[in-house]
Amino acid sequence: MILGTEVDELAASSNILIPPLNFAMVAPGIYRSGYPNSKNHTFLNKLKLRTILYLCPEDYMDANVEFCAQNGIKVFQYGIQGNKEPFVDIPEEAIRDALLVLLNQQNHPVLIHCNKGKHRTGCLVGCLRKLQQWSLTSIFDEYRRFAGTKVRVLDQQFIELFRTSSLHLAAKPAWL
Amino acid sequence: MILGTEVDELAASSNILIPPLNFAMVAPGIYRSGYPNSKNHTFLNKLKLRTILYLCPEDYMDANVEFCAQNGIKVFQYGIQGNKEPFVDIPEEAIRDALLVLLNQQNHPVLIHCNKGKHRTGCLVGCLRKLQQWSLTSIFDEYRRFAGTKVRVLDQQFIELFRTSSLHLAAKPAWL
Repeated sequence: MILGTEVDELAASSNILIPPLNFAMVAPGIYRSGYPNSKNHTFLNKLKLRTILYLCPEDYMDANVEFCAQNGIKVFQYGIQGNKEPFVDIPEEAIRDALLVLLNQQNHPVLIHCNKGKHRTGCLVGCLRKLQQWSLTSIFDEYRRFAGTKVRVLDQQFIELFRTSSLHLAAKPAWL
Repeated sequence: MILGTEVDELAASSNILIPPLNFAMVAPGIYRSGYPNSKNHTFLNKLKLRTILYLCPEDYMDANVEFCAQNGIKVFQYGIQGNKEPFVDIPEEAIRDALLVLLNQQNHPVLIHCNKGKHRTGCLVGCLRKLQQWSLTSIFDEYRRFAGTKVRVLDQQFIELFRTSSLHLAAKPAWL
């Protein structure tokens, strides 16, 4: 039987890098993923992250707290409940606050993550795409690419109804 | 009935940006997508591309040739046949040559595309991930995200067997 720690050692000894689940680049200086664990730390080190935007209400995993402290990575937590259709709403205010951190270039490179990198992360990235003026078709196509068979219509509705006009961005990136 | 040109006008008048099919960022300075058309030109302009890496054997579409000429974008074409299982092999030599162009930072920002942004583009990106020492699990997960239900096992086999050791990269990016 191969234990978790043995997987870590196997990866380390073979120089294999293991990105977190559903890892991808969103835009210059912005990455997304599912919940990273210690198997992913060597990979994350290569990104030279300055910031992690953690979108779940649960306390952050000890191994990640330690990793961030050792590498000077600031962690911003926005405790968003998963959008359990049809009873829990994504809080627009939290997404708004998260966008301000996300788009402040002084925080880049930044990694956004939730648990699976599908729904909460997908909503935040979808709202960013609205700011970038992407067509909804393209936004939903990207959302679906990460959510797979777990697409949530209420997440898509949240993105569609999200008002970008009232966001006041300070040091926004050149590509926006 | 709304015609293609009307869609272009609708998009232009509403400031909506339309990324090409399956568009995504691969790494700093590197993007991937399906075949762009004139609806996507305004979006592509924002990327300030220096290079397009076109992976199909067919002549490049006139509208794109013109767009590239107007915007000083170099087009490199590697005419790879789709990997029609089980009879057509992806030519390793073409992927190798394409990787050299792709990883020369003087060509960045660069867009890789084929027709759907699934198979040929997926193979090239998969080989790039091998150079980045990603685990095969992660490489195939990313491949599948774009290929959806059209995953080709021979594409994955090509990526698995691709030898990265003999590639001699000149001005390779800092993140590699």
